[in-house]
Amino acid sequence: MRIGLDVMGGDYAPKAAVLGAIETYTTLPADQKLVLIGDSNQVKTICTEVGFDVNNFELVHTDEVIGMGEHPTKAIVKKPNSSIAVGFGLLKEGKIDAFSSAGNTGAMLVGSMFSVKAIPGVIRPCMPTIVPKLHGGVGIILDVGANADCKPDVLLQFGILGKLLAENIYEVNNPKVGLMNIGEEEEKGNLLSLATYPLMKDTEMFNFIGNIEGRDLFNDKADVIVCDGFTGNIILKLAESFYVLTRKKGLKDEFFDRFNYEQYGGSPILGVNAPVVIGHGISSPEAIKNMLLLSRDLITSGLIDKIKQAFQ
Amino acid sequence: MRIGLDVMGGDYAPKAAVLGAIETYTTLPADQKLVLIGDSNQVKTICTEVGFDVNNFELVHTDEVIGMGEHPTKAIVKKPNSSIAVGFGLLKEGKIDAFSSAGNTGAMLVGSMFSVKAIPGVIRPCMPTIVPKLHGGVGIILDVGANADCKPDVLLQFGILGKLLAENIYEVNNPKVGLMNIGEEEEKGNLLSLATYPLMKDTEMFNFIGNIEGRDLFNDKADVIVCDGFTGNIILKLAESFYVLTRKKGLKDEFFDRFNYEQYGGSPILGVNAPVVIGHGISSPEAIKNMLLLSRDLITSGLIDKIKQAFQ
Repeated sequence: MRIGLDVMGGDYAPKAAVLGAIETYTTLPADQKLVLIGDSNQVKTICTEVGFDVNNFELVHTDEVIGMGEHPTKAIVKKPNSSIAVGFGLLKEGKIDAFSSAGNTGAMLVGSMFSVKAIPGVIRPCMPTIVPKLHGGVGIILDVGANADCKPDVLLQFGILGKLLAENIYEVNNPKVGLMNIGEEEEKGNLLSLATYPLMKDTEMFNFIGNIEGRDLFNDKADVIVCDGFTGNIILKLAESFYVLTRKKGLKDEFFDRFNYEQYGGSPILGVNAPVVIGHGISSPEAIKNMLLLSRDLITSGLIDKIKQAFQ
Repeated sequence: MRIGLDVMGGDYAPKAAVLGAIETYTTLPADQKLVLIGDSNQVKTICTEVGFDVNNFELVHTDEVIGMGEHPTKAIVKKPNSSIAVGFGLLKEGKIDAFSSAGNTGAMLVGSMFSVKAIPGVIRPCMPTIVPKLHGGVGIILDVGANADCKPDVLLQFGILGKLLAENIYEVNNPKVGLMNIGEEEEKGNLLSLATYPLMKDTEMFNFIGNIEGRDLFNDKADVIVCDGFTGNIILKLAESFYVLTRKKGLKDEFFDRFNYEQYGGSPILGVNAPVVIGHGISSPEAIKNMLLLSRDLITSGLIDKIKQAFQ
């Protein structure tokens, strides 16, 4: 198994990425190799600084970088030798089994769609995120930004993708799938949620438990929460701001600690033909490590094949 | 001035409503009268219990109540002698200058649209709510649930309504109006926000500062945050759940204390021809008092006339 990492992605790249890869290396069995894609000279320098043998990694040298603020589609096309473009090339050719980056989210989304492409039957791949549950465990909310506008059949598919992620990566048995809405009753909602509800009610693809509301994000009503990427992105950023606030205020609590993005490592792009994980821009070595371990889990769980089967 | 209150509305009605009215009475000058609409016998009993002279109030007896779970439109039509229906009748006839209730939100919305009606030019009246700002003061977010689906021109109008509310009730000078979105750049967003941005950018009706994100709810970027009622309702309930969480966790902080809905008393319905305020279902006497004081401020500020002028 070969796990690819863009070492040029993230606000603290390449140092945080390389240090994270080193931390990960010590936890992996010999047959799980890390492939570091980026400026090999910088990788070697960082390894030397910390006394780590760079030969434990496989290196793929690239000499271009897609910046955090660059236009995704233009950057991917104009920088074929960027770490992200090269990473997707390797993934498409099967030379790596997963690819992850804490770099430009849009470029990762575009890159995955252009290279490994959407799984046949999946209308719109999406990005989930993990939310800590008050009574322990985690929930999944999706989409959190890949698709600002969604149609009802797309939201229905997010339910399937979220269910499979919850079952195969987070070991939730028969996950409860809820539709984010502004009231519990079937007749509450906007045009999108009103049209989505009956599709979800009728599906046999997952365990639909009905509408849930903003206040239910952290309770146990639903394991998987489905919404369009506009709503999900606003929810995600608002929740993150609360975590930041509790930290600023010096409020210590086990629950709030579990908001720490570092623990989750990143969001997979669900619905494309290979494991792809996007990390937080501010990723620390710890976050990079968890992003790589998530990539590994996506490979070993066979999630991609399970998604393909579900959409056959 | 005559301030109308539905004493039958709210989870703890009529007791919380009457006790709130008594608390308010002691703070009002003689020319600001409270008109209590509901079961007069119950009002008298509660006043006697606490040794308060019921003659300080004006009572309007009603013998029907619209329950919290009833269908708004049907209930208003079927229960013409309910406290909400009678209250709106008095408001329409000018026998009270404002009407407020902690009862059925939908019935209050429908009642205001059917009786005093939307101000000419206002496409969709809406409900704002107040959010505490981290560095002091408050912000306004609207709509939070009256209009699940909105068009760009409706969001533009919410900007005008929010600006006038901020200026006239919360004494914010030249309020900064932001559009809730999923990125700061003009080209980010869903179809609705993409179409709304240029309208707001071009308007001279308010000080548009661009897109803001979920993480900006509590900072000082915008005084007024505009979104559709679906998004706003989810934001509101998520923010409330955080406040409940900090309370449950025993985390004490001045900022989180300012989330307490009791301090704000309720949400006005903006864009109708008279002051109408909807309180939280779980309103305590303190919340009822602040709802009545907000009603009073809506009258004295002349906000309704200022909205009429803006939409002429």
